[in-house]
Amino acid sequence: MADSTKIELIAPHRCRARVLYGDTDAGGVVYYGNYLRYFERGRTELMRERGISYRELEDRGLIMPVVEAYSRYKASARYDDLIEIATSFIWVKRLSCRFNYEIRQTADQGLLIKGFTLHAVVNHQGKLTKLPDDIFIALQEIIDNPPVINLTKKHDRL
Amino acid sequence: MADSTKIELIAPHRCRARVLYGDTDAGGVVYYGNYLRYFERGRTELMRERGISYRELEDRGLIMPVVEAYSRYKASARYDDLIEIATSFIWVKRLSCRFNYEIRQTADQGLLIKGFTLHAVVNHQGKLTKLPDDIFIALQEIIDNPPVINLTKKHDRL
Amino acid sequence: MADSTKIELIAPHRCRARVLYGDTDAGGVVYYGNYLRYFERGRTELMRERGISYRELEDRGLIMPVVEAYSRYKASARYDDLIEIATSFIWVKRLSCRFNYEIRQTADQGLLIKGFTLHAVVNHQGKLTKLPDDIFIALQEIIDNPPVINLTKKHDRL
Amino acid sequence: MADSTKIELIAPHRCRARVLYGDTDAGGVVYYGNYLRYFERGRTELMRERGISYRELEDRGLIMPVVEAYSRYKASARYDDLIEIATSFIWVKRLSCRFNYEIRQTADQGLLIKGFTLHAVVNHQGKLTKLPDDIFIALQEIIDNPPVINLTKKHDRL
Repeated sequence: MADSTKIELIAPHRCRARVLYGDTDAGGVVYYGNYLRYFERGRTELMRERGISYRELEDRGLIMPVVEAYSRYKASARYDDLIEIATSFIWVKRLSCRFNYEIRQTADQGLLIKGFTLHAVVNHQGKLTKLPDDIFIALQEIIDNPPVINLTKKHDRL
Repeated sequence: MADSTKIELIAPHRCRARVLYGDTDAGGVVYYGNYLRYFERGRTELMRERGISYRELEDRGLIMPVVEAYSRYKASARYDDLIEIATSFIWVKRLSCRFNYEIRQTADQGLLIKGFTLHAVVNHQGKLTKLPDDIFIALQEIIDNPPVINLTKKHDRL
Repeated sequence: MADSTKIELIAPHRCRARVLYGDTDAGGVVYYGNYLRYFERGRTELMRERGISYRELEDRGLIMPVVEAYSRYKASARYDDLIEIATSFIWVKRLSCRFNYEIRQTADQGLLIKGFTLHAVVNHQGKLTKLPDDIFIALQEIIDNPPVINLTKKHDRL
Repeated sequence: MADSTKIELIAPHRCRARVLYGDTDAGGVVYYGNYLRYFERGRTELMRERGISYRELEDRGLIMPVVEAYSRYKASARYDDLIEIATSFIWVKRLSCRFNYEIRQTADQGLLIKGFTLHAVVNHQGKLTKLPDDIFIALQEIIDNPPVINLTKKHDRL
């Protein structure tokens, strides 16, 4: 976790979410655990946009479970806020990869949270498994050639 | 609940959602309780599109809690499915209102679930409260002049 | 759904839950969809106490998905409330079964919600499947010989 | 976050939870974000046992939101597993405090996850606020005189 305090965004993917009542808690703000759902949304949409569906990885017998998750909460999102999830795919190795996240208010770009997730690569039996060449190269390609700003693109409409 | 088995859609509002891992359960499908989150999304987006923000109602001291909810599950949505939430605002009275819902697979329009929610109108102390004229008329207007098909409109991009 | 408004409890199983922040919403009360989690807890604990583990049913290739769920909300549970989930196993047929629920405040027994779930019996391919004799008889036995009041029993301690 | 990799348990409080279907995801295991609900349960029950209700703190105008959360996932809990949440109250200052967590399988004590949460002290307007003397002393007392092993005590029955 040596680099965990440094949560940089490099050419991030961006998508938006509207805060539901079901995301909030009695404090009037998004429940702290629910930001990990937004992180999931961010990394899934990033990969989909770059032509890799996580579901397809699974169909090939690969699972990439979270082995570490970290969040630093700066401000609170409230019911009905329109928030923006920025996700950077930071690195990929044969057995692991990492995503960084920043979530901001869309209206004034106020920072809500920064965080990261570290993932292992395992098979359906839960055993550590090396990424096959084609997928490793495709993932590395995402990092080497990150997408341009994409808030208005089709995938953001779900 | 006399009319509860009849769940008709009249000129419904439509919006889409992508099924997250966090929405599913170990059965491989969306957890049965999580469809009520999609219902919430459907009715909130319907009202927003017609110029009424539920958050603004709350700012005027009005809350519309669910007093009945019903779901009939026809088929299961899976991880990464793109689903379509169709919501109809069926009627509004001074003290209550009702929404009907249908959720379908976007790809083949296969029916996943039908349901309804019945809402009361209360104040912040939880006491039944009549809708003021302007809001009642604005809500009735939504029913009398339902939106046209709107899948490509701005609000669908969140 | 002819009998859905009549939600009777017959010799119910009872267990308790403490409301987490994560169960509530910005209205300060339990989110309406989260009561379906409490229903799940109620029926699972009822079956476990009577010697039937739902996980074991699954290991035998049987799944009992919810095909209808209904909730009537009477009052709101708040953060940190200790609530009591009363569950009745109402009937079982070869292809379906039904549970009724009541959730009350433990402190004053104030009614929070009544509801029911209707379940189908399917195999792992999702095809309707008749319950085998031994399980059908064991389930019928639960209904014919309901448990006595059990709030202090071991299973309530989790 | 200098000390974040060192997640020690000192005289931890222990309570148990049964994994619901609603806690799991399509991978067949508890969704990674839902462990933060277990963390919440752990720290709330720890404080309740030592005579401090978090709800009472709120009634006195104090909120202790999570400002950092970290989880290291070692193994996966599955549906119906009985898990044990061990929580240590590590330190308290006038403006912040920290809890460490370990969650294990009850059956074989297999480690599932380690983590921590760091909390700030704020008032209802979200402004950093010093803990008043009596509460600070009461919290410090928890740390100086941790509870003995308590799995069979009344509070564990919820």
